[in-house]
Amino acid sequence: MKLSQIAILIGAEFSGEDREIKSMNTLFDASLNELSFVANTKYIKDIAASNAGAIIVDKNTKDEVPSTCIALVVESPYWEMAVLSQKFSKQLEDVNSPKANIGEGSVISPKAELANGATIGKNCHIMAGAYVGSNAVIGDNTILYPNVVVYRDCHIGSECIIHAGSAIGSDGFGFASNKLGEHKKIYHNGNVVIEDDVEIGSNTSIDRAVFGKTLIKKGSRLDNLIHIAHNCEVGEYSVIAGQTGLAGSSKLGRSSVFGAQSGVAGHLEIAPFNTFAARTGVTKSIKESGQVFAGFPFMNHKSWLKIQAKLAKLIK
Amino acid sequence: MKLSQIAILIGAEFSGEDREIKSMNTLFDASLNELSFVANTKYIKDIAASNAGAIIVDKNTKDEVPSTCIALVVESPYWEMAVLSQKFSKQLEDVNSPKANIGEGSVISPKAELANGATIGKNCHIMAGAYVGSNAVIGDNTILYPNVVVYRDCHIGSECIIHAGSAIGSDGFGFASNKLGEHKKIYHNGNVVIEDDVEIGSNTSIDRAVFGKTLIKKGSRLDNLIHIAHNCEVGEYSVIAGQTGLAGSSKLGRSSVFGAQSGVAGHLEIAPFNTFAARTGVTKSIKESGQVFAGFPFMNHKSWLKIQAKLAKLIK
Amino acid sequence: MKLSQIAILIGAEFSGEDREIKSMNTLFDASLNELSFVANTKYIKDIAASNAGAIIVDKNTKDEVPSTCIALVVESPYWEMAVLSQKFSKQLEDVNSPKANIGEGSVISPKAELANGATIGKNCHIMAGAYVGSNAVIGDNTILYPNVVVYRDCHIGSECIIHAGSAIGSDGFGFASNKLGEHKKIYHNGNVVIEDDVEIGSNTSIDRAVFGKTLIKKGSRLDNLIHIAHNCEVGEYSVIAGQTGLAGSSKLGRSSVFGAQSGVAGHLEIAPFNTFAARTGVTKSIKESGQVFAGFPFMNHKSWLKIQAKLAKLIK
Repeated sequence: MKLSQIAILIGAEFSGEDREIKSMNTLFDASLNELSFVANTKYIKDIAASNAGAIIVDKNTKDEVPSTCIALVVESPYWEMAVLSQKFSKQLEDVNSPKANIGEGSVISPKAELANGATIGKNCHIMAGAYVGSNAVIGDNTILYPNVVVYRDCHIGSECIIHAGSAIGSDGFGFASNKLGEHKKIYHNGNVVIEDDVEIGSNTSIDRAVFGKTLIKKGSRLDNLIHIAHNCEVGEYSVIAGQTGLAGSSKLGRSSVFGAQSGVAGHLEIAPFNTFAARTGVTKSIKESGQVFAGFPFMNHKSWLKIQAKLAKLIK
Repeated sequence: MKLSQIAILIGAEFSGEDREIKSMNTLFDASLNELSFVANTKYIKDIAASNAGAIIVDKNTKDEVPSTCIALVVESPYWEMAVLSQKFSKQLEDVNSPKANIGEGSVISPKAELANGATIGKNCHIMAGAYVGSNAVIGDNTILYPNVVVYRDCHIGSECIIHAGSAIGSDGFGFASNKLGEHKKIYHNGNVVIEDDVEIGSNTSIDRAVFGKTLIKKGSRLDNLIHIAHNCEVGEYSVIAGQTGLAGSSKLGRSSVFGAQSGVAGHLEIAPFNTFAARTGVTKSIKESGQVFAGFPFMNHKSWLKIQAKLAKLIK
Repeated sequence: MKLSQIAILIGAEFSGEDREIKSMNTLFDASLNELSFVANTKYIKDIAASNAGAIIVDKNTKDEVPSTCIALVVESPYWEMAVLSQKFSKQLEDVNSPKANIGEGSVISPKAELANGATIGKNCHIMAGAYVGSNAVIGDNTILYPNVVVYRDCHIGSECIIHAGSAIGSDGFGFASNKLGEHKKIYHNGNVVIEDDVEIGSNTSIDRAVFGKTLIKKGSRLDNLIHIAHNCEVGEYSVIAGQTGLAGSSKLGRSSVFGAQSGVAGHLEIAPFNTFAARTGVTKSIKESGQVFAGFPFMNHKSWLKIQAKLAKLIK
C-alpha cells in the first residue's frame, strides 16, 4: 500500500516522498518498506535506531522522527495502528493457492481439513477434525490429534505431538481502546513457531504474534489447558504443567519448569534453569538461574515456606 | 403439558383448576402459563409478586402461595424442579426444521455443520468443524474459527469473532442432590446471547442459562480458556483476560477489566468501570466504580500492596 | 516381545531364562508376563512382593530383585522405561479392526468419526465432529456433544453427557529427562474409565493413565475447563467446579466437592465427604471426612477466615 493511501486511511498529516509499505512491524524490527508506530513515550528512545520507512506518532513525538523516516502524525497512534493492522491482514484462507502439499507416508483423515497452501511433512498423522490453515507448515512424523487447529502461517516442527482440541495460532488478545471505552481489534499478522520434538496437551491455546512470532523451542513439554499469549518465547526443554498461563511477550529461558496453575506476567525475561512451584505468579524478570520460586507475588521457595509457617502461627 | 400431568410426574399434591404449562421460569420472570419453584427460604418473600401459574413448594411454604396461583406441594422442590426441567427440554436438534438459512456472501465450510433451523447472517465465515445448532442465530460479518461450537438456541451478534474450540451454550453446572449424594441434572433451557462486536478467544466456555439468558454485551473482549457460568452478564466493552472464571449469575458492569486468572464468585453485582489485577478473586458485590482491586479475597489494590510489603518483612 | 530383545533395545545386562513380555506395569500390578521398573529408591521395598516377570533397575538395586524375577540392569531405569513404553504402545487407530459397532437407536452424525473397533451403545447421540477411537466403548443413552474426543481404549458409561470440546484420554504429562535436560516421552498405554451417570462440561481434559486407568466414578459432575491428570480417581457423586485441576495419581473419595479454580497436588488421597472452597490448593492427603477446607496451602476453612481477618488488620 502507498504511504499516501495509508495517510488518508488514518487521517494523518504526511510530508515527504511517497513510499510503498508492505507491512507493519515494531520499531526494532521494521525495515524501510515497513511502517511502525510509537504509542507509549517509553519507546521514543528507540526511534533513532529504527530502520522503519515511516512511523505513526502523535504531535508531541513527531520531532523525534529523523529526516530519513516519514512521520505520520495522528492523535491516537495506537488506535490508528489497530485500524491499519486490518488493512495488512491476510484473508482467512488462500482459496487460490494450490492444494495442500502432503509428504510421503502421511495419513490424513478425510475428516481433517487442510486449507490450500498448507504443507504437511512425511509420515504425519492428521486425525479427524484437525485443521491446518493456509501457508501453515507441519514437519515430519508429527501427530495432530482430533480437532487440533493450526491457524494459517503457523509452523509446527518434526516429531511433535499435539493433543485434541488445542489451538495453535489464535489471535492474541490485543486491541486499542478509545475514550468511550470501545475497542478496536489489532489484527495479528505474526504467527506461532513450534520447533521439533515438542509435545502439547489437550485444549491448550497458543496465540499468534502481533508481529514476528510466538516461539516454543525444541524439546519443550506443555500440558493441558495452558494459555500462551502473543509473542511469548518458551526456551528449549521447558516443562509447563496444566492450567498455567503466560501473559504477552514474556520469554522463558531454557529448561524452565512450571508447576500447575502458575502464571507469568507480561514482558518479563526469565533466566534459564529456574523452577516454579505450582501456582507461582511471576511478577518480575529473573536474572539468576538455578532457583526455586513459589507464591504470588513470587519469592524464593524457602521464603514462601517461612511465610506460610508464620501465617499458620497467627491462627494459634 | 397439563398441570395435572406435572403433578403426577413429581408426585405432588395439587388442588385447583388445571392449566396448560408451557415452560419453567424463575419466580420473577414466570408468567401465567409457566411453572416456578421455591427451593430456598430466602425466596419465599418473592412469591407474592410472582405471576407464575403454579409454584413447586414444600409443605412449609405452601401457605405463602396466593390463591391466584397453584401450589404443587412436594418434599424436595429443587429435586422435582430438576426432574421436570428434563420434560421441558428440547431435543438436541430439530431434525424436522427447515435447513439452515444462510445469508448472502457467507462462506460455510463443507466440513462445518449447520443444524436444521439455524440462521447465518451475511458475509459470515463458518470454518471447518464449526457447529451451529438448531434455532441458533449468527449475525452478519461474523467469523467462527474451526471447531467453534454454538449450541442450539444461542444468538451471536454481528461483527463477532470466535476463536477455535470455544463452546457457546454448553449446559450450566446445575443439579439437585439428594440425601444419598446422588445428583439430578437441571436441564438448561435458557440460552447464550452475545451482542455485536464481541471477540472471544480460543477454548473458552460460555454456559447457557437455566432460564433466560447468559449475556455478553456489545464490544466486549474475552481471551482464551475463560469460563463464564450460567446466567452471567458481562457489561458492554468489558475486557477479560485469559483463564478467568465467573461463577453463576454474576453481573459485571460496563467496561469491567479483569487481569488473567481472575475469578468472580456467584450471584455478585459489580459496578461499571472497575479494574481487577491478575488473579483477583472477587467475593462480594461492588457498588463503587473507578476502583482497582487485587488479591483473594479481593481488596483495594493499594491495600494488597501494603499486605505484600508486610508479609515480605515477616521473613527478614 | 522377548525379554532378550528388550534387553538389547535398552542395552541392559540380562541373565536368566528368556521370557515373553506382553506389556509394562507398576511393581504392584505387574504379572509374570509383564515388565516393571524401579526408578526411585522409595519403591525398592515393593520389589519383593511384585509378581513382575522382569524389573528394570540400576546396579545399586539389582540385588533386591528376587531370583524368581529377572533384573534388567541399566544406568537410567526411568529413561529406559520411557524408551520401552513406545515399543508397547498401540497404533493411533486399528485400521484393520471391524467397523464401529453401533447400538440400536443411536444417532451418529455423518460428521462424527468412529474409528474401527469402537463400540457405541443404544440410543446414544454422537454429534458432529465428535471422535471415538479404536476399542473405545460408549454405554447406552450417552451424549457426546460436538467435537468431543474420546481417545482409543477409553470407556464411557451409560447415561453420560460430555460437552463440546472435551478431551477424554489424551496422554498424561509424563516423560523421563536426562542430564542434558532432554525429555523422553512416556507413552501412556492405560486408559480413562468414566462410569455411568457422569456429566462433564465443555473443554475439559481428562488424561489417560500410564498403566491402568484414570477413573471417574458414577454420578460425578465435572464442570468446564477442568484438568484431570493421569491415574487420578474421582469418587462417586463428586462435584468439581470450573477450572479446577488434579495432578497425577490423586484419589478423591466419594462425594468430594470442589469449588472453582481449586487444585490438588499429585499422589494424594482425600477422604470422602469433604468440601473445598473455591481456589483451595490441597497439598497433603486428608484422612478425616466431613470437613470444609480453603486456602493455599489449604487449611480448615475457619482458620482461613481467621487469617484473612488478621491480614485485614495488618493494613489498618
